[in-house]
Amino acid sequence: MRLSERIERALALARLDGLIAASIENAIWLSGAYNPIRRMITERPAIVLWPANGPPTLIAASVEEAFLRERSSIPDLRLYKGTIEAAVSTLSDALRTRGVASGRLGLDVGGVSAPFYLELRRRLPEAEIVDATDLLNRLRAVKNEQEIALLRRAALATDRAEWSTLDAFQLGWTELDVGTRLRQALIAEGAETIAHLLLGGGARGVAAHAEPQDITLQQGEVLRFDFGGVFRGWYSDIAKTAVLGSPSPRQRELYRVVQQVLDRHIARLRPGVVVGELHKSVAHDFAQAGLEFRAPHVGHGIGLSVHEWPILHEGSSASLEADMVLCAEIIHVEADRERYHLEEVVWVRDSGPEVVSRSRVAPAEIPMIG
Amino acid sequence: MRLSERIERALALARLDGLIAASIENAIWLSGAYNPIRRMITERPAIVLWPANGPPTLIAASVEEAFLRERSSIPDLRLYKGTIEAAVSTLSDALRTRGVASGRLGLDVGGVSAPFYLELRRRLPEAEIVDATDLLNRLRAVKNEQEIALLRRAALATDRAEWSTLDAFQLGWTELDVGTRLRQALIAEGAETIAHLLLGGGARGVAAHAEPQDITLQQGEVLRFDFGGVFRGWYSDIAKTAVLGSPSPRQRELYRVVQQVLDRHIARLRPGVVVGELHKSVAHDFAQAGLEFRAPHVGHGIGLSVHEWPILHEGSSASLEADMVLCAEIIHVEADRERYHLEEVVWVRDSGPEVVSRSRVAPAEIPMIG
Repeated sequence: MRLSERIERALALARLDGLIAASIENAIWLSGAYNPIRRMITERPAIVLWPANGPPTLIAASVEEAFLRERSSIPDLRLYKGTIEAAVSTLSDALRTRGVASGRLGLDVGGVSAPFYLELRRRLPEAEIVDATDLLNRLRAVKNEQEIALLRRAALATDRAEWSTLDAFQLGWTELDVGTRLRQALIAEGAETIAHLLLGGGARGVAAHAEPQDITLQQGEVLRFDFGGVFRGWYSDIAKTAVLGSPSPRQRELYRVVQQVLDRHIARLRPGVVVGELHKSVAHDFAQAGLEFRAPHVGHGIGLSVHEWPILHEGSSASLEADMVLCAEIIHVEADRERYHLEEVVWVRDSGPEVVSRSRVAPAEIPMIG
Repeated sequence: MRLSERIERALALARLDGLIAASIENAIWLSGAYNPIRRMITERPAIVLWPANGPPTLIAASVEEAFLRERSSIPDLRLYKGTIEAAVSTLSDALRTRGVASGRLGLDVGGVSAPFYLELRRRLPEAEIVDATDLLNRLRAVKNEQEIALLRRAALATDRAEWSTLDAFQLGWTELDVGTRLRQALIAEGAETIAHLLLGGGARGVAAHAEPQDITLQQGEVLRFDFGGVFRGWYSDIAKTAVLGSPSPRQRELYRVVQQVLDRHIARLRPGVVVGELHKSVAHDFAQAGLEFRAPHVGHGIGLSVHEWPILHEGSSASLEADMVLCAEIIHVEADRERYHLEEVVWVRDSGPEVVSRSRVAPAEIPMIG
């Protein structure tokens, strides 16, 4: 189904006269034009207005004009000079022109700033504003062919950067050495920037923040990292666990369990599956292996940001749909001493899940480095 | 003056019973603890509550506990599990405990999301909420010794990365080759991520978005880039212009003018100077050189984000203060064909401006590469 048809159906179903998409991600998604500067200068938002009765309008800062005339899929472009007040004033004029200024309007409230929201309320006292965050999240969660190709490219590039770093690892390296190598390898693979890097050896890898430190990794230590970048606006997010030198039998065993639980989890990622059930199944697999299960979620959508809807958390009633792209992740923390963490990117297909993040076959045994 | 004294004075002056600092930057700044994950998972904010009558309280997600106990300068830590509703509920309990829930409270409205603001309003119907964005921006604009050292380190690292890339340049390189080299050099210099890179040769460098493309740079082309990264939360932002091979007399002349205008602009960055006057002076210098001046601003504060208050724009009545750190930038666009852009980081001192971004002496002539 074409994007415009999907939007029109969603608007009809939610009885909306129009949609205002003003979050960074939604504006990129609906206009097809990615401008990274908007993350840096947030007071110059781009906004897509999509009335139920016709084609969309793009409202953007005048400095973006040349760029948007070249890249945007929305020909009706209205420009403003200034910051948020000017943006909302231009939006509100567009709403009036399109005859929906006093209608029932969906807005991605969850992705806009307080000043934007307050200015919009002030300018449009007669409109009924409905939170359309969820509506847009659900639409954006189902990817088209081109989006899947971009996410696959980003995932494979990240996987290659991670393996090349593990392959190059030398005893004596610090966490920071590994971190620098990972970041440089990702840039070499075409990332425009690093989105996140959590990395640590042994107990330092357990911490939720785990930033790489100037500490030499030791023989027998478990090294864990969770890493990703941005590729023309599309994110990657892949976690790996390795060991320095020969693993202990317990380390070997724990890695195997986490890898097996992940494989079984991935195999369940099919259209129609309820997310809460996925979490339950992983909890069950952990119990079977005699391990405590504490993770609040077992994955999340990925796309124009790292953590997208659906978050695969306990009790969620969301259902998977074909052409979602998800990060599937399994974590086991061993006695606050070691974190085993594996994460892959998976394309949910009618024919079954397809892992799109493996540049080589996933090892059945814990990778040894150094 | 100590931070707590500065906050207490500002609160008294604005007749506030307390301050709620919930933007990413303000929470980092007031707690002294930098957690990059908060930019990735924005629905788990950290919030500093600073009542007029006593010490501050830090409200944060429970996953941050170990990290904050180690790093935060605020011992009173209150944790929540969940997302924004839980955060605001914990904040509102803290406000009640501290006896300021029905008081006049400053909030950095400009840095919070619409859901956060709406939830706060819902939870605290009896409070008077005042926009303290500006109050906090002004406080944060004046840096302490440690912050200046961190900004200097970030600026020097970025300058070295930029010069080493220009030094290494080979004829035949594409814009993307230069971009990859810049990004890798910045990572090697210790950046945790790339904040922004605008780069282009000739007319491609004129565009406001100017992302590096897979296009070979040509002899005689002016190469311009504007580049920066993040170093433990602190940002850098330095622009340079060079030419491939021998410059034409006109290219030589335009670079000299921009460099001279920048030097004069920097020399005026002293405590007490009104920002609008700075813009006027640059416009005057351009007129003297017979060039059209179109830039909306001639610099901005830099710190825990790239564009911080004060923005040095036309008509601004803000005044410079000692220990502000500013990016001073001068741009000339020549007939939509070339962009000359120079930007340095400057520490505003009582004794006069100090450029903190020069790892080598700034060239008087346009740098030749290739």
